[in-house]
Amino acid sequence: MSKPSGPIPDGFAAQDGVLLLGGRRADALVEEAGGTPLFVYDPGIVARQIDRFRRAFDDVQLHYAVKANPYEPLLRWIASRVDGLDVASEGEMRAALGSGAAAEHVSFAGPGKRDEELAAAIAAGVTLNLEGEGEAQRALALAARIGMRPRLAVRVNPDFEIRGSGMRMGGSATPFGVDAERVPALVRSLVAAGADWRGFHIYAGSQALEAEALVETQRATVALAASLAREAGAPPPLVNLGGGFGLPYFHGQQPLDVERVGAALGEALAARPLILRPTRFAIELGRWLVGEAGVYLTRIVERKESRGRTFFITDGGMHHQLAASGNFGQVVRRNYPVAIATRFGAPAEEEASLVGCLCTPLDRLADDVMTPRAEAGDLVAVFLAGAYGLSASPQAFLAHPPAREMLVGAPNSPP
Amino acid sequence: MSKPSGPIPDGFAAQDGVLLLGGRRADALVEEAGGTPLFVYDPGIVARQIDRFRRAFDDVQLHYAVKANPYEPLLRWIASRVDGLDVASEGEMRAALGSGAAAEHVSFAGPGKRDEELAAAIAAGVTLNLEGEGEAQRALALAARIGMRPRLAVRVNPDFEIRGSGMRMGGSATPFGVDAERVPALVRSLVAAGADWRGFHIYAGSQALEAEALVETQRATVALAASLAREAGAPPPLVNLGGGFGLPYFHGQQPLDVERVGAALGEALAARPLILRPTRFAIELGRWLVGEAGVYLTRIVERKESRGRTFFITDGGMHHQLAASGNFGQVVRRNYPVAIATRFGAPAEEEASLVGCLCTPLDRLADDVMTPRAEAGDLVAVFLAGAYGLSASPQAFLAHPPAREMLVGAPNSPP
Repeated sequence: MSKPSGPIPDGFAAQDGVLLLGGRRADALVEEAGGTPLFVYDPGIVARQIDRFRRAFDDVQLHYAVKANPYEPLLRWIASRVDGLDVASEGEMRAALGSGAAAEHVSFAGPGKRDEELAAAIAAGVTLNLEGEGEAQRALALAARIGMRPRLAVRVNPDFEIRGSGMRMGGSATPFGVDAERVPALVRSLVAAGADWRGFHIYAGSQALEAEALVETQRATVALAASLAREAGAPPPLVNLGGGFGLPYFHGQQPLDVERVGAALGEALAARPLILRPTRFAIELGRWLVGEAGVYLTRIVERKESRGRTFFITDGGMHHQLAASGNFGQVVRRNYPVAIATRFGAPAEEEASLVGCLCTPLDRLADDVMTPRAEAGDLVAVFLAGAYGLSASPQAFLAHPPAREMLVGAPNSPP
Repeated sequence: MSKPSGPIPDGFAAQDGVLLLGGRRADALVEEAGGTPLFVYDPGIVARQIDRFRRAFDDVQLHYAVKANPYEPLLRWIASRVDGLDVASEGEMRAALGSGAAAEHVSFAGPGKRDEELAAAIAAGVTLNLEGEGEAQRALALAARIGMRPRLAVRVNPDFEIRGSGMRMGGSATPFGVDAERVPALVRSLVAAGADWRGFHIYAGSQALEAEALVETQRATVALAASLAREAGAPPPLVNLGGGFGLPYFHGQQPLDVERVGAALGEALAARPLILRPTRFAIELGRWLVGEAGVYLTRIVERKESRGRTFFITDGGMHHQLAASGNFGQVVRRNYPVAIATRFGAPAEEEASLVGCLCTPLDRLADDVMTPRAEAGDLVAVFLAGAYGLSASPQAFLAHPPAREMLVGAPNSPP
């Protein structure tokens, strides 16, 4: 019995049976890059997502979560088109600043910030999203030592989470943020200490596909921000509403109705409490902006039969695409969208499993999917490889050559 | 309700409450290495495992599977103490040859070997464990072009697997090896083509803890090798019986009775069919040799309370120890053995969760374990970090600093 693969994102087409990426043939891109495995990122698709966000959300800032994909040319391309970059380590902070973002548009979250990281962020003028009272004290002490007024926001652990969220980051005990009930006291202490208080960061989950769940969460987030601001006696300059916009990776999943989320948030913001009138709002997106823009191309090294089943063994695998192998937070392994890139759109003729070159049964790209008949030399495309792909994979495992990365068809003109 | 952590391997002790590794205090090792996170590998524990193997197995070669841990100083230490190195990529092959192993003691398995890899192995004189007829043809053609007589073994996909094996690598349709029923024809063709036929590689599973399951598998493997040799009309110079020796990672698991396995294999080999009389046998071990020798040390950055639960947030995490986070082949997340290295042996006083510094809820080192009261600055030890640790983890994820690695207390004298 064949298993379905996930839905291929809209807009991919073929020329002479070869998948086009950014208007270029996949085989030509591989040649240009010098071989497989290759991650191709199409900024045109990121631009489409940014445009869609801008149309759906009125007067809401768009931040990019660098951890989704830190590939430098892509980050530079994005940095000039969004309103802020959110980073999760000093390394990401350096990448964000190097991409051309101004320090006041960079904010740094992460539960285990070391003193060196805090000091580096304060010295650079980056906003720290404080994850706890202990971190707040360390940041204030370091700022005093450095002689800078620190930009500090408070990450709030809300008492709710996105319903049906792929990954819970709030609503219960977590290492992330400060429990909502303790936030007002912390904000008062920051203001009293003379810090440049930047507002709240409230992240309630990720990979949500249901619009109503996000609508509810965003309404609750706005209400929570208002009540915290009132209790703290300080209107927040910015409220980062989190993100959580999901993409359909697996068979049967439906895309998020972003327009519905935007319209509902517009209503909620129009009716927001007085204390939030001067506040700016931001949404922080990673996966939703870049996930569909990336395709992982790998070449079939062997076509192999074993006990009645067919395997396409590729030169890529879980060392580059851990998530597609089912080993990145998934409980049940399901197939990502995949295709034979050099026979794109050809009718499915046989059932095959696509595996990687690692000497472990964990290294699976797609199990028992229907594909056109393919041979050694054909290219395999794994879609949705733009977020949490190469940088989230164990590249050194088994010491195979590193994957290549490239931008294709980049609209190079300024946004 | 607290959850158990896994069993700490035998032989770890403390001095003044600080965990000793290779006879040295963990805090002193961190200082020497320049900080945390740090993987410490103790060759003394590898030596203990090698000795135990040598005593349990009479006249059976011991191979090391480099993929378990390719850290160069450790690999060099091991290379001179085992009878062969098994590699899974050209990169690992170069590391093995660089460690001082002679080419005739290196063998290369892996389902997706590219032409360049095959050619490099043939040119180096390394034995190729052929994974299929297609690969065999490519290897013979490349050898002819290079003008070398290739060393070729056949990896067999047996029609059985280790009962209760943590990871199945045989017994059904797989990308690994040649289905047993097709092996004799392949061997005959290799011999006819003038290759230097090296024998069989028969791997039926890994991470087995039940001696009887391994005994059964090894008996079946010897019988299979004999029947394939008879059908092929060629006695194999070497039969690699695979490995599969497991370690107890989780609460309730019991160590493998290696002596029982060795005694039973000795009986099986003493009674082996005539055609295998001249054959040498090898067992290939990775995890069992090095897993217990590694400890991952990370420092508590923050002690944090959230809604009645305590979190120790460390400067390490899943980017260095993916397996301990539960994202490396596990279906159900369970706790690895962990301890507060700077309060080792102190009575458990509180329930806490140990998490990493990554800004994702996937980054967990141990959930709800009982620990001594610990504070920021204390060191956390994650045991069983010697195999499939750093090299099998997504080190670049979130751009935190790389982990350090060191050998400690290395018995430097030649074996």
